Amino acid sequence: MTLQLVIGDKRYSSWSLRAALALEIAGVDYDEVLIALNKPDTAQLIAQHSPSGKVPLLKTADGPVWDSLAIVEYLAEQCPSLWPKDVYARAVARSVCAQMHSGFASLRTHMPMDLQRAQPLANVAADVTGDIEQVCRLWAECRAGFGQQGPFLFGQPSAADAFYAPVASRLRSYQVELPPEASAYVEAIYNWPAFQRWYKAAQEEQLG
Amino acid sequence: MTLQLVIGDKRYSSWSLRAALALEIAGVDYDEVLIALNKPDTAQLIAQHSPSGKVPLLKTADGPVWDSLAIVEYLAEQCPSLWPKDVYARAVARSVCAQMHSGFASLRTHMPMDLQRAQPLANVAADVTGDIEQVCRLWAECRAGFGQQGPFLFGQPSAADAFYAPVASRLRSYQVELPPEASAYVEAIYNWPAFQRWYKAAQEEQLG
Repeated sequence: MTLQLVIGDKRYSSWSLRAALALEIAGVDYDEVLIALNKPDTAQLIAQHSPSGKVPLLKTADGPVWDSLAIVEYLAEQCPSLWPKDVYARAVARSVCAQMHSGFASLRTHMPMDLQRAQPLANVAADVTGDIEQVCRLWAECRAGFGQQGPFLFGQPSAADAFYAPVASRLRSYQVELPPEASAYVEAIYNWPAFQRWYKAAQEEQLG
Repeated sequence: MTLQLVIGDKRYSSWSLRAALALEIAGVDYDEVLIALNKPDTAQLIAQHSPSGKVPLLKTADGPVWDSLAIVEYLAEQCPSLWPKDVYARAVARSVCAQMHSGFASLRTHMPMDLQRAQPLANVAADVTGDIEQVCRLWAECRAGFGQQGPFLFGQPSAADAFYAPVASRLRSYQVELPPEASAYVEAIYNWPAFQRWYKAAQEEQLG
C-alpha cells in the first residue's frame, strides 16, 4: 500500500507542510488526501482518518501514524537522512524540532501561516517579537555549529528545516525585518524545490 | 562524563518527571541538578544550563539536549527498549507521546501536576472533561492493541508511560472518577518503582 498523507489546506496548515516536507526529504512516494479546514464537515472528515481528530496523519499499511513529529521518526527509521548524521547534531536537531512542536505560542497565535499573504501585522506584540528573536538565535546557532555543508539549519535539508519552514514563511509573508543570516535562511527555504512545490499549490488554492 | 539532568521541583515539574522516567527505563546513570521553580533567581539559574530557558535539560559530554522528547530519542538510540519493539507499536507510542507533548492544553492548564495534592477540583470545565475522556480512550486503545505483556500502555514500561505518568498522577491527585481500565493503569503507574522514587522525593519536598 502506498502511504497516504492526510493534510489540511496548503495555504494554512503549517503542521501538514511539516509532514509533507519530511516525506519529500525521505524521498518516499505518497498520495495526498486534502481536507478543507474550517468547513461544516471538516471535523467529521478528519475523524474518518484520525484518532486525534487532527491533521497531519500518515496512513500506513499497519494503521495510522499521527502528529508530525511521530511521522518524522517513523520515516527516519527507513530514511536516516531525515536527521543529521552526527549523533550530537541529531540531538540538537531533535531539540529544536521539539521546541517548535510545543513552543513559540505567541508567534503561532498572532502570525498564523498564510502562504497567500504579503502584508505586515499592524501591531506586533512584545511576546511575538521575543519569539522571533529566539527563533533567529536558534537558527544562527544551528547554522554556525552544524551548517557548514549547505544553506540549511544542519547543512543539507533535514527534519529541522521541515519544522521551521512554516516559520520562515511567516517571517516573509508578514514582512518581518530580520538579521542577515536569518534572511539568508528564509531565502534558502524559498529556494528549496520541496517547499516551492507546496508553495505553488498553496498560491493556487481556492477556498470555497 | 556522567549525564546530568536539570529538573524543576519534583512536586510540580511534570516535564522533568517525564525525562527522569525515560532515564530510569533506559537504566542510565545520571546526576540530578534541581532548580526550584518560581523563585526570583529561577530564570537566571536555568539560563546557565538551558538554551531554551526551560527544564528538563540533559547535559551530555557533547553539549545540552533539551526538551523531554528530544531527550527520549537521544537515549533511545543507545537504549532501544525505551520504545516498543514492533515497528507499528513504536509508531503509535511516538504518536501518543507527540500528542501529549503539544496537546491536552485544558487538562494541563486547569489541573497542573501537584504530587502533594489529594483534593478534587471544585468545578471541572467541559473541555477538561473532554481531555480526560480522550486520554482514557487513548490509554484503552494502547492497552487493548499493544499491552498484552504487562500493565503498561505497551506492556512493558516505555517512553509512552514516562509521558503519561504525570497525567495518571493528576487523575489521582484531583480524585477524578475513571473507567476501570483507566484506574488500573493509574495503579500500574503508582506501583512502578521508577515513579515511586520520584513520588516519594516529591512528598518530602519543602518549598522554601
